[in-house]
Amino acid sequence: MVKSPETEHPIKAYGYAARDTSGVLSPLTFSRRVTGDKDVRLKILYCGICHSDLHFAKNEWGLTSYPVVPGHEIVGVVTEVGSKVEKFKVGDNAGVGCLVGSCGSCDNCANDLESYCPKQILTYASPYHDGTKTYGGYSDHIVADESFVLRWPENLPLDTGAPLLCAGITTYSPLRYFGLDKPGMKVGVVGLGGLGHVAVKMAKAFGAEVTVFSTTPAKEQEALEGLKADRFIVSKDQDQMRSALSSLDGIIDTVSATHPIAPLLSVLKPHGKLVLVGAPEKPLELIPFSLITGRKIVGGSAIGGLKETQEMLDFAAKHGVTADIELIPMDYVNTAMDRMLKSDVRYRFVIDVEKSLKAP
Amino acid sequence: MVKSPETEHPIKAYGYAARDTSGVLSPLTFSRRVTGDKDVRLKILYCGICHSDLHFAKNEWGLTSYPVVPGHEIVGVVTEVGSKVEKFKVGDNAGVGCLVGSCGSCDNCANDLESYCPKQILTYASPYHDGTKTYGGYSDHIVADESFVLRWPENLPLDTGAPLLCAGITTYSPLRYFGLDKPGMKVGVVGLGGLGHVAVKMAKAFGAEVTVFSTTPAKEQEALEGLKADRFIVSKDQDQMRSALSSLDGIIDTVSATHPIAPLLSVLKPHGKLVLVGAPEKPLELIPFSLITGRKIVGGSAIGGLKETQEMLDFAAKHGVTADIELIPMDYVNTAMDRMLKSDVRYRFVIDVEKSLKAP
Repeated sequence: MVKSPETEHPIKAYGYAARDTSGVLSPLTFSRRVTGDKDVRLKILYCGICHSDLHFAKNEWGLTSYPVVPGHEIVGVVTEVGSKVEKFKVGDNAGVGCLVGSCGSCDNCANDLESYCPKQILTYASPYHDGTKTYGGYSDHIVADESFVLRWPENLPLDTGAPLLCAGITTYSPLRYFGLDKPGMKVGVVGLGGLGHVAVKMAKAFGAEVTVFSTTPAKEQEALEGLKADRFIVSKDQDQMRSALSSLDGIIDTVSATHPIAPLLSVLKPHGKLVLVGAPEKPLELIPFSLITGRKIVGGSAIGGLKETQEMLDFAAKHGVTADIELIPMDYVNTAMDRMLKSDVRYRFVIDVEKSLKAP
Repeated sequence: MVKSPETEHPIKAYGYAARDTSGVLSPLTFSRRVTGDKDVRLKILYCGICHSDLHFAKNEWGLTSYPVVPGHEIVGVVTEVGSKVEKFKVGDNAGVGCLVGSCGSCDNCANDLESYCPKQILTYASPYHDGTKTYGGYSDHIVADESFVLRWPENLPLDTGAPLLCAGITTYSPLRYFGLDKPGMKVGVVGLGGLGHVAVKMAKAFGAEVTVFSTTPAKEQEALEGLKADRFIVSKDQDQMRSALSSLDGIIDTVSATHPIAPLLSVLKPHGKLVLVGAPEKPLELIPFSLITGRKIVGGSAIGGLKETQEMLDFAAKHGVTADIELIPMDYVNTAMDRMLKSDVRYRFVIDVEKSLKAP
């Protein structure tokens, strides 16, 4: 017999959950497992709101079983550690990102690429090793295997650092993997939202010369002054696009709406790389000639593995990379979701969990 | 005043040319320049027929000015060398591929990637440095700067080796650039025509385990027995495709008709690479998720630079890689073009120029 979320584990937990495809979140009392030998228990302080949270809340990817407690940009403080935990002690700050488990035995896991393990366990809405469902960071606490818990660098802010656990690694990883992490490289960032604004900061931290592409002319000032981008191009302006022809080594495309990629390929130098990290649901049009004549590529990239995520946090702390956030109380989350859908946020909502989530 | 092809240069030449978009080839008397200080003159022995020749003959890419003498898989014997030529002497066998010039000063040229120089000069139908038009290898002889002439390895056959100058380098180069050149890699080849059959041989020579994808079940025996491929999959058979899910490190896709690439991406392992070397004219459908979830890429690749083309010829000689050809006389060329269009050739036509082209 399947037990209820409230009783399947011994430890009481409390959070906000969506219960149907309306995606509306409301309080949920559920439960978490006892701290295993290799587990770390965190009291959650902050949790970022990622666009995926909304996709899952509304079951737009068909992966959701309700109730779902979203949240995979989790920062907290360690309250309990298992007997075999080596990396953490009570009182440490720590993070949990998009994953809490993987198979541990495939090629990807063997190469610190848990994010590409076919049996990866998402931080929420995934079946865990014990068969129970995972619940995310819109909640008072979380328990995770220490292999999937990140050490929090001392000088990295807890609130503005939280979104790095998804938006940070999603932009850092492709910059590294596709070789766009060398000083002086010319890197484009398409779209200036939660992912895009962090991509600009990461690329700048690597020493790149960064061009922002946006459909919104009004974002120029924010891009150049706020985010210190070097150039701003209105992607719908053909003259501006022509001025950038064959000028970039690579592009991180964060746009999740369907959009033309041929113009983006045209602003790449030969051997340039267009990397999609946003995920439009409809197919994009790819003109083979636009790749062949310049030996260009279109790639995709997801989050990174745990080792790289730790490396990214350390890099962010060293270079002062954080997200620009709007800190909100938990009961504002539905409004925040609505605003996020309209791109009405500069640039990421972060829930002040500790201060605003009170168990009944 | 523009001089006629027959009188613009002092040396008489003779070949077969298309004169309009019918693409029908007929004899043409034209002229070639005197041998410059750094030029090599070749008496042409063999010339392969590439699908691009037909595209140019019919002006299907909008790049043709008539008359056009096609042919860029040229093997011949050196009959004259300029005073500053260092690599060749009279009597040497040599080859001329797709290019006879480039700017010599851009980043690509500086990195032996003349094939991506924006000012590259094609072996035919391109304006040369002196403003005259280039004419290809369906002709009795050719003159080219020695930098664009390939040394012919001693034990590489002249006739079956000729197609390597385009089909060989077009498949060798992406196998190298995209890291699919390591023993034991699992490589797919899509389409079993002029490019595809050489791709299979090249990949096998690198030590890969090769899977051929074709829409034509009847090609299985040729693929496995004739070309020594390890596996044959009918790409329209969903069960066969499912059996190959996530199994390949990379794919060389030689198909120039519009075709679905999502199934090809699905048979790539995570981090796998789909490389397009055929050039469908209509856009392909690219589903971003199919790239993102496995950090896969779709790339394109053209021919290679001169240095790599030489390396490829030496590699082919060492490993016994040649094309399977049907040797034809020059006056069969129109029939050959028709048959090529119907894929009725195993696998490349090569014109026996020396024996069959007689100046009037």
